[in-house]
Amino acid sequence: MTADMINAAFYRGDRTFAVEKTPKTAPQPGEVPIRIAYCGICGTDMHVYHGNMDARVGHNRIVGHEMSGIVAADAEGFAAGQKVVVRPLDHCGDCPACNAGNQHICHNLKFLGLDTDGAMQEIWSVPAHTLHRLPDDMRMDHAALIEPVAVACHDVRLSGLRPGEDVVVIGGGPIGVLVAMVARDTGGKVVISEVNPHRLAIAQKMGFDTINPAETDLKTAIEQRTGGKGAEVVFEVSGTQPGVDAMTQVAATRGRIVMVAIHAQKPQIDLFQFFWRELQLVGVRVYEPEDYEKAIAIIAAGGVDADTFITDISPLSDIQAAFEALDSSPTAMKSLIKVGEDA
Amino acid sequence: MTADMINAAFYRGDRTFAVEKTPKTAPQPGEVPIRIAYCGICGTDMHVYHGNMDARVGHNRIVGHEMSGIVAADAEGFAAGQKVVVRPLDHCGDCPACNAGNQHICHNLKFLGLDTDGAMQEIWSVPAHTLHRLPDDMRMDHAALIEPVAVACHDVRLSGLRPGEDVVVIGGGPIGVLVAMVARDTGGKVVISEVNPHRLAIAQKMGFDTINPAETDLKTAIEQRTGGKGAEVVFEVSGTQPGVDAMTQVAATRGRIVMVAIHAQKPQIDLFQFFWRELQLVGVRVYEPEDYEKAIAIIAAGGVDADTFITDISPLSDIQAAFEALDSSPTAMKSLIKVGEDA
Repeated sequence: MTADMINAAFYRGDRTFAVEKTPKTAPQPGEVPIRIAYCGICGTDMHVYHGNMDARVGHNRIVGHEMSGIVAADAEGFAAGQKVVVRPLDHCGDCPACNAGNQHICHNLKFLGLDTDGAMQEIWSVPAHTLHRLPDDMRMDHAALIEPVAVACHDVRLSGLRPGEDVVVIGGGPIGVLVAMVARDTGGKVVISEVNPHRLAIAQKMGFDTINPAETDLKTAIEQRTGGKGAEVVFEVSGTQPGVDAMTQVAATRGRIVMVAIHAQKPQIDLFQFFWRELQLVGVRVYEPEDYEKAIAIIAAGGVDADTFITDISPLSDIQAAFEALDSSPTAMKSLIKVGEDA
Repeated sequence: MTADMINAAFYRGDRTFAVEKTPKTAPQPGEVPIRIAYCGICGTDMHVYHGNMDARVGHNRIVGHEMSGIVAADAEGFAAGQKVVVRPLDHCGDCPACNAGNQHICHNLKFLGLDTDGAMQEIWSVPAHTLHRLPDDMRMDHAALIEPVAVACHDVRLSGLRPGEDVVVIGGGPIGVLVAMVARDTGGKVVISEVNPHRLAIAQKMGFDTINPAETDLKTAIEQRTGGKGAEVVFEVSGTQPGVDAMTQVAATRGRIVMVAIHAQKPQIDLFQFFWRELQLVGVRVYEPEDYEKAIAIIAAGGVDADTFITDISPLSDIQAAFEALDSSPTAMKSLIKVGEDA
């Protein structure tokens, strides 16, 4: 490629990515150019691939936000060569949420990599306020997990989990497993409920107690584990009606139920149990800066079993095959795209 | 009556109360005998009247728990003549909820006046730990409101309401109005949503802003009131699917929705909004001792418009007519029974 052209993967609609040369654009004022190392494929990216978000992203969009990279040129106080990750949220600064200090759920939030072009390109220029510095010795493939780990850190922080409390994670997919890891790292006694035997096997390999609610009555099992108390903290990550049914059954009196899953439908909820046992439901979305710092510290300390969690790494040129494989794999957890040749 | 017989109202099933003479029973160890002054008719008592709780209360039960009274004889450190109210909760002391300090939602909770005989009798003996002392100059009819006001104090306390925050109360019945009063007393900017024109008129008489969602789009009205922000605190007191639909629509980003109503059905809930705006749902039930102390202080300070709220007072001998009238009245808020002749 010429010095002014870079490789980028464009979503072209209809489950199709095209890797093309595109002109390298100069950073705008306030932006920092990042040479992308790795970029993970998020569940949201899979929704884009399936065509569910065409109205939002169009057919000329570079997706990707679970990235790691290196500052490509001195800018905005960041030195070339600095390892970084991007917290892909750009807020308006002038809405009721921003005014209340909740910039991460800004009413006019732009999510980088969906509402703007993202990290599936060799050079990505982003607002400096979205950057977090990484330790020099951090592995860049592991660093690509920081964004989803920050989601889990946010969820666990807002649960108010205290060491020694019982935790049930309903749903053992990628986010469920990361929530379980962060909850364990925080001192929770964690059990994962999951029906997929492949995911159960992965969770067990990572050292988690598991329950398959298709085989074992979950409510009874949690009562037995906790002496009739139930779990102080429940994470609903399944996005299903059975998961919503289970969340009120396994929660302890005054238990906190964290709504991690995105429920596009309106499930039925056993509100009587919220009254009877003073349950709490806590909605959670993305992350705040401190969640990123916590995620960086956890990855740096080996608190996440990254090598088990990363189940595939493909070069950018193979992004189409990587999406197809992830879409059909019953065993995959996290697939990374190696974007930069020098990553 | 003889010295050993007292008047009591027994629920006999089939919407029927019988006022009969019954032997005065001696207080058990740990109990204090109370001469009942007034006892309010609770929505729960109305459920009993309707036959919905026959399996729990039987057909030989003295109901009543929203009471005021005077200690009838020195006992357990209480002096005869002391004005008191009863917090009608008897906990087991040995379940996970009690062990976690949540005795008010004990797994084996006995509710006095439902699971035991209650206050619709001239002398009621209760465990000493359930008593709260009243100021000597408190009006005993007003004191009969302390129990439902304590419910409202509990609900508002668990909402975390701070002065200046916007509050929507969905449902303007007796509990909704009391929640609104306590929320206003705490410094909230309160609006009541209610469809019943009689209840709207009472709420307005008490000085509240009101919205009739059958005539005005509630979401739009709250957005206009709050500059697009929404309400930091929402109390769902309606117990209806439209109320549950409204609660997520009017809440601000990171708003706290307090589930005051008892939903016997499992309504559909817009969980997406919990995710998108990090809403919280807080289940609340009955009260704790500090809520009683707060309710006593509010009543003593005139923070509740008791004379407007109390819409009927009948003698114990007319309890049947009082229940029938309350059941058919569109304008009633709180009906009291004057139990003691010397009240």
